[in-house]
Amino acid sequence: MSRIVYVNGNYVPEAEATVSVFDRGFVMADAIYEVTAVIDGKMLEFDGHMARMQRSLDELNIAYKVDYDDMLAIHREMITRNNLVTGGIYIQISRGNPGDRDFIFPEGDAISPTIVLFTQEKPDPRLDESKLTGWHIMTMEDLRWHRRDIKTVQLLWPSIAKTAAIRAGFDDTWMIENGTITEGTSNNAYIIKDNVIITRQLSHDILHGITRASLLRYAHDRQMKIEERPFTVDEVKSADEAFITSASTYVKPVVSIDGVNIGSGKVGKHALQLRQIYIEESLKAAI
Amino acid sequence: MSRIVYVNGNYVPEAEATVSVFDRGFVMADAIYEVTAVIDGKMLEFDGHMARMQRSLDELNIAYKVDYDDMLAIHREMITRNNLVTGGIYIQISRGNPGDRDFIFPEGDAISPTIVLFTQEKPDPRLDESKLTGWHIMTMEDLRWHRRDIKTVQLLWPSIAKTAAIRAGFDDTWMIENGTITEGTSNNAYIIKDNVIITRQLSHDILHGITRASLLRYAHDRQMKIEERPFTVDEVKSADEAFITSASTYVKPVVSIDGVNIGSGKVGKHALQLRQIYIEESLKAAI
Repeated sequence: MSRIVYVNGNYVPEAEATVSVFDRGFVMADAIYEVTAVIDGKMLEFDGHMARMQRSLDELNIAYKVDYDDMLAIHREMITRNNLVTGGIYIQISRGNPGDRDFIFPEGDAISPTIVLFTQEKPDPRLDESKLTGWHIMTMEDLRWHRRDIKTVQLLWPSIAKTAAIRAGFDDTWMIENGTITEGTSNNAYIIKDNVIITRQLSHDILHGITRASLLRYAHDRQMKIEERPFTVDEVKSADEAFITSASTYVKPVVSIDGVNIGSGKVGKHALQLRQIYIEESLKAAI
Repeated sequence: MSRIVYVNGNYVPEAEATVSVFDRGFVMADAIYEVTAVIDGKMLEFDGHMARMQRSLDELNIAYKVDYDDMLAIHREMITRNNLVTGGIYIQISRGNPGDRDFIFPEGDAISPTIVLFTQEKPDPRLDESKLTGWHIMTMEDLRWHRRDIKTVQLLWPSIAKTAAIRAGFDDTWMIENGTITEGTSNNAYIIKDNVIITRQLSHDILHGITRASLLRYAHDRQMKIEERPFTVDEVKSADEAFITSASTYVKPVVSIDGVNIGSGKVGKHALQLRQIYIEESLKAAI
């Protein structure tokens, strides 16, 4: 069945959802995005996604102020119109169509942003708990631009790295810069060693994951130890467990890296517990 | 007057030139481009642009083989339909629309590329020779991804850097990485010291400029000395002259960097001569 897509105020069948070829999202990658998870028809972490979206827009000087109530209404309308029960809502905001291609940002009223939303159905994360398997990870250099904290559509390198992993029989790629892991292709990376959760600290090097922030808060509330610092591939190989977080995977165990088992090579108990805590807690706060 | 834009085999008014919101060029910056200069209704360096376009496509595994004769016919049709005398023809090829958003490249026949062409009018470069002024340049860190030899639409950082320059009263930004200049926001960078032309060697660090290749050949043919190596901002400040090359600016003198005059602070005689040689020689070979 054809989805209903939102484009600049209109709800249209997906085949009719288009943007101008002059849109700066198309010719300049001048656009940001967010993906909000949906479970039982409710949105997880909506406030966090809207706050990060505003930050991304501000960092790029895209003149758009997120109206929380409007955005909530549009997201909910997308859930209703697409009968979305479990999956995600993607929103992209580009600087818009200035009428021609130019490296220089158009000023003020000369442009208005392009706003697009579409939905994606996914399986319910609670259904596969019993048969949950971990991801096998490979590594590649991190060749992305140096403002990964801004969630832009400049996703060519993550896309290349994810494709390389799948084609080679892995599930994802963790990227390496100056000898340490930055993150996965669309997720934050963690290891657990001696009951300490280790994950890279926030900076321009990585995306400031919404799931990451919540999970660390939940872990902290449960007196788990957390170290925020870079870690190496060797540390991953000698870790007890590893996992990733993202809006679309929640918490996902990682069981090997570059063909080397992590810990027992099976889904770790802490990772599984953190997954259950995250889904439970974020569903409680879902709207 | 509305331009005629080419989209996947159709020539349409620019207001009707659209692509799907699911096009990977829009959601993933998964697209490459070329700009071919036009003078007197003829194309400069067309063969070079087509060869580089094929290389960019191949590097990204976008399954599209450039048919030279087809491409020539489409470019010429665009010149005719838009009465283009002087300016440029922009072509962008994205991986296409797989029907949904996914980091993983679709395989084989599951996708066909999106091809878009449009024209841009510009002044005749021969008209302003007498009043030719040089560019004032500022510098910024180079935060782009690390495959700048592939001409992708991931142009957010160059766009930010160009906009910063214009808003601050400069003409362009030269980008710096590890203490040396990589290139301008959409052009290759050169200095001249003691009659030697110095420009960064080809690598993944910079775009392999078509104008650059031809200009260096013309200079070599005229027994000018050339050194291909990285250079620092201090070397620019103590150079005799500086200039940039690109398809849309040809050869353009640079007269200051970060507020410091280069040489006399006026358009250099070598830069001016190289500009004249380039326009003359490339026009001779125009098609």
